[in-house]
Amino acid sequence: MKAIIPFKMENAKSRLSPLLSALERKEFAERMLEDVIHALDNSVVRKYEVLTGGTLDDAINGAIRDVQTPILIVMPDLPLIQPRHINEVVGSSADVVIAPGRGGGTNLLFLREPHLFKVQYHNTSFLRHVQIAQDRGMSVDIYDSFFVSTDMDVPEDLVELLIHGTGAAARYLCEIDVTISTISGRD
Amino acid sequence: MKAIIPFKMENAKSRLSPLLSALERKEFAERMLEDVIHALDNSVVRKYEVLTGGTLDDAINGAIRDVQTPILIVMPDLPLIQPRHINEVVGSSADVVIAPGRGGGTNLLFLREPHLFKVQYHNTSFLRHVQIAQDRGMSVDIYDSFFVSTDMDVPEDLVELLIHGTGAAARYLCEIDVTISTISGRD
Repeated sequence: MKAIIPFKMENAKSRLSPLLSALERKEFAERMLEDVIHALDNSVVRKYEVLTGGTLDDAINGAIRDVQTPILIVMPDLPLIQPRHINEVVGSSADVVIAPGRGGGTNLLFLREPHLFKVQYHNTSFLRHVQIAQDRGMSVDIYDSFFVSTDMDVPEDLVELLIHGTGAAARYLCEIDVTISTISGRD
Repeated sequence: MKAIIPFKMENAKSRLSPLLSALERKEFAERMLEDVIHALDNSVVRKYEVLTGGTLDDAINGAIRDVQTPILIVMPDLPLIQPRHINEVVGSSADVVIAPGRGGGTNLLFLREPHLFKVQYHNTSFLRHVQIAQDRGMSVDIYDSFFVSTDMDVPEDLVELLIHGTGAAARYLCEIDVTISTISGRD
């Protein structure tokens, strides 16, 4: 089993631009990726691949097309993720496990038979992925975690990281002097 | 053991006024309370009290002051809560269990010795409650649930309910024709 992490290199996290410069957004995205990789390194899933090219759907669907062993797809902007979350998700007996993100997103997607699945990450992908699994007769588990649901898209998401975070991305916000009051003040 | 649910009768959920009329907000708040009570009724905590008077802190601190048996404080706007969540929280061996809400809130607060605790629900109450427990030498568990973290404060919170909800509050949104596109359109 391995994990794949789609990672956008160009103009990442543009909705954080009211608060972070282009360089800061790039560095912040890298620290979050570091946190995700750290969680994977300390979980039962030790093998991972960072996907950088193409659109999200094309890159992932290309990577899973011929894979007949389980795959875990992990979004790169989950700085609150812990090894426990990964172990619990891949320990499920379901064919498909989805950890929802806020607003209908899919933050973790575990596929027991990747070659039978096609991802669709746009527009409330959570509902799409449930539907795609059901259309194929696959069983679905919903993995319920606040920390995994918390991706970093808009300034107020950073509040969650300042309150609950302990990893590289949380430390980075301290280094560049982003505090709860800066976020609330400018939001 | 019992649960207490603080419930505001007057002008509840005012931040939903861009989307819901005063009557709709009142009815919506009542349906959410119904969902919370339904979850409690089907959990190991069957006894509950709805607190309606005073400010939040005063009402709760008044209610817990002399109580020497465990208490679970449940916010009334958690329409995605399930009996499983309640059972897991009260099944913890910690002195204090906190289920965080988004933005530093405290959505569930389990107190093994309520008479030794004082709640403070304003301004990132999550951090305050952790601190209050630590100051008293009490052990703290953080209960990690996306569904419990999802309270209903602003219009975009309703999207979560439309995507994930199955109870009375979710049905109410359908009855009054609130859909994901109405919310995104007006937000």
